[in-house]
Amino acid sequence: MKIDLNGILDSKRLAISRALSFVENTDNLDMAITDALFQHLGRAYRIGVTGPPGAGKSSLVDRIISYWRNQDKRIAVISVDPTSPFTGGAILGDRVRMGRHYADKGVFIRSMATRGNHGGLALRAQDAADIFDAAGFDIIVYETVGVGQVELDVAKAADTTLVVLVPESGDDIQAMKAGLMEIADLFIINKSDRQGANQAFAQIQSMLEMRHPEKGLWPPQVIKTSALKDEGITTLTDALVEHRQYLNEHGIIRQNFRDRILFKIKSHIEENVLHTFWSEERRKLLDQAMTTDSVKNILPGKIVDSLLKDEAKSPQV
Amino acid sequence: MKIDLNGILDSKRLAISRALSFVENTDNLDMAITDALFQHLGRAYRIGVTGPPGAGKSSLVDRIISYWRNQDKRIAVISVDPTSPFTGGAILGDRVRMGRHYADKGVFIRSMATRGNHGGLALRAQDAADIFDAAGFDIIVYETVGVGQVELDVAKAADTTLVVLVPESGDDIQAMKAGLMEIADLFIINKSDRQGANQAFAQIQSMLEMRHPEKGLWPPQVIKTSALKDEGITTLTDALVEHRQYLNEHGIIRQNFRDRILFKIKSHIEENVLHTFWSEERRKLLDQAMTTDSVKNILPGKIVDSLLKDEAKSPQV
Repeated sequence: MKIDLNGILDSKRLAISRALSFVENTDNLDMAITDALFQHLGRAYRIGVTGPPGAGKSSLVDRIISYWRNQDKRIAVISVDPTSPFTGGAILGDRVRMGRHYADKGVFIRSMATRGNHGGLALRAQDAADIFDAAGFDIIVYETVGVGQVELDVAKAADTTLVVLVPESGDDIQAMKAGLMEIADLFIINKSDRQGANQAFAQIQSMLEMRHPEKGLWPPQVIKTSALKDEGITTLTDALVEHRQYLNEHGIIRQNFRDRILFKIKSHIEENVLHTFWSEERRKLLDQAMTTDSVKNILPGKIVDSLLKDEAKSPQV
Repeated sequence: MKIDLNGILDSKRLAISRALSFVENTDNLDMAITDALFQHLGRAYRIGVTGPPGAGKSSLVDRIISYWRNQDKRIAVISVDPTSPFTGGAILGDRVRMGRHYADKGVFIRSMATRGNHGGLALRAQDAADIFDAAGFDIIVYETVGVGQVELDVAKAADTTLVVLVPESGDDIQAMKAGLMEIADLFIINKSDRQGANQAFAQIQSMLEMRHPEKGLWPPQVIKTSALKDEGITTLTDALVEHRQYLNEHGIIRQNFRDRILFKIKSHIEENVLHTFWSEERRKLLDQAMTTDSVKNILPGKIVDSLLKDEAKSPQV
């Protein structure tokens, strides 16, 4: 497919929408989108929002949208749903929760489901963000469910990462800390009108203090919000503005840009290498080795070896 | 390393422990463990337990352990923690929550953290389970945090998958349904002494009914528990026994065994292919292309192309 580059640069919704569908459905074996958009990237601020189901991420994003819309900024939301790799479902609830922004021309909300391959999902989310960036959106929000590997990949594609928890998450904060610590620029305790918010706040604070960050590094902040009651949102958006400024001053925005390109290049290369490896012939060899009769008799390592040995003599790209 | 096969078959804790450490730390480029254990696999029943942080999975697993220990079954727990790919942290809380079983010789609890690569984590978890299987453990429980791609991979490595939710998860059940529907054999609403348990129960039930499963397929069950108050545990374990019987009667246990071997073979092959591709020379080429000066001037697609073209002339495995 040829993307409508001028349509995207003019921020035409139809052109954007079609490019997003292309990104979602392509086998992603070429860099057409990236190369076409490349000269127009690097202006948007990319925010990742992650956390367990039920933490109120969508409601919080809804508030963030309102805040920036009041400042006349254009904002795009990419809801990444890694929970449905089989059926290709999407985060339906968002359409309800962020519904009031759907008619707003300055807002673009898009759900993306994974198509089997996790690396692929992070890659596609990044391509989608690039489309919004080229189309002149000021802010791009990635929203993901959970705190697994996909979310970490997506977080790496963001400039600022919000980890949204609820007061009851306290139980597991200790358990999750290593991974969360690494990715969170801001911890949000949402639904903090509920019991336990202050304990959760103190718990995260003390974990952060134990960490002894290197001098000059961004010290992650903990913020209590209630998206439902519209409380703490200004504190949150102020912290976002502050973090963005920090990133700019330290050249990290530029470094992030480079890292995202590198990630994309590597992923595309690896997709290609594996796609080339799994020729018709090799897939047949594997199928034959895995027939019910033979599966108990051939050692798995032998199957691996014979397929890899075969690599040497087969045609290359 | 040479694993102590006889030690494992005799279920010596030191031999098991060392083999587990090997699995966790190896680059996983050979199938030594799989081939060594292969003739001794296929006896254990593998259960996956997943769900959002704070759902009380560890407490629930603790109850399941007690139940099977009372029947003199030996049980191993593998806590898979995909939240800390950077620091290699582990689920510390488990050691506290399942602590009372640590002195029990019939129980083996092990945390595994990911080492960068997600596919690798699922693979390592499976290798660990194979070690326990060969060592004669009757039941193996994989416990994971979250419902992301890693968890889905791990779930595929289990015979029965429990998705543990809390009454408050209701909000997001609708959103997550596609992915959860596919993997859950049993839905557990834990902490169901809390408000909203009946609504959550009804919500999941009605989603399951809308699904119109094919005749003869296992109809996922919804079970309310309170691990803390020791309520609903017998209903849960009865359902596990029932599901296992269903799997046996339909030949699915055997099919699962085959699928796990296939997954392992494919993963090992792909790890090898990529490892071979990323030669010293190619890594240098990429580094050079990504220096700060050139990153804005060379189209990413050109970098991909030049590295892939290079593939044809470089030495093969």
